[in-house]
Amino acid sequence: MTDIFDKIISGEIPSYKVYEDDDVLAFLDLSQATPGHTLVIPKKHVQDIYSYDDDLSAKVLSKLPVIARAVKASNPKIIGINILSNNGAAAGQSVPHSHWHIIPRYQDDGLDLPGAVDHSDEYSPSKYEAVAKSIREQF
Amino acid sequence: MTDIFDKIISGEIPSYKVYEDDDVLAFLDLSQATPGHTLVIPKKHVQDIYSYDDDLSAKVLSKLPVIARAVKASNPKIIGINILSNNGAAAGQSVPHSHWHIIPRYQDDGLDLPGAVDHSDEYSPSKYEAVAKSIREQF
Ligand SMILES: [Zn+2]
Ligand SMILES: [Zn+2]
Repeated sequence: MTDIFDKIISGEIPSYKVYEDDDVLAFLDLSQATPGHTLVIPKKHVQDIYSYDDDLSAKVLSKLPVIARAVKASNPKIIGINILSNNGAAAGQSVPHSHWHIIPRYQDDGLDLPGAVDHSDEYSPSKYEAVAKSIREQF
Repeated sequence: MTDIFDKIISGEIPSYKVYEDDDVLAFLDLSQATPGHTLVIPKKHVQDIYSYDDDLSAKVLSKLPVIARAVKASNPKIIGINILSNNGAAAGQSVPHSHWHIIPRYQDDGLDLPGAVDHSDEYSPSKYEAVAKSIREQF
């Protein structure tokens, strides 16, 4: 299928590019959740995290540190970076082409993240173990 | 340095493991933001995304799709997955050992994500271009 990111890759739709190689394109997210907010996408169309084979994930995801370092170095006010990939509409995925948000963080930028959600008071050791087992059995 | 994740890797501190190989350990986040919330960490101590070399990032990050597929397959109620890595205290990083949250999403789970933040009304083409250029120059 052809989505807006494939059109950005082909050049049919312009973008503010920050990095490109054979496997990856990185460009500014127009929403700019914070200044420097960058999207990293595989040039090969894959819909989501489930669709990467080992070769593609090694090629594409190994670029995340490279691009994150460049984003960090671009502005001395950047004091942190969130890397986020949403998979599935229920997870907030808006374009059906896998993408990785690199979101620079600044003092008092007001951004919230779900890391603070803590349900550990609802879990017993046996409940944790049951959940872990249900995942382990899928490999 | 030795942090809590190094102690989990060495077995000094127990964990609910879901996957392990030479390079990577995956185990349940005790906070369980949603059921099946898993952390993926490199066995080699690296503090954050900036610290990965190309070899390590290929080895470690190529496992994210493998583990995400297993998490997804573990529960038919999972309708999406967020993958999140926080780098730096300002970004919500609580343990100074790089880690990747795999957060399953469910109908009406109430989790919020920063993807919806949109500042595009504050950006002109020349402002976008200036930001993109500041990053491009770092490669
Ligand atoms: Zn596509
Ligand atoms: Zn460590």
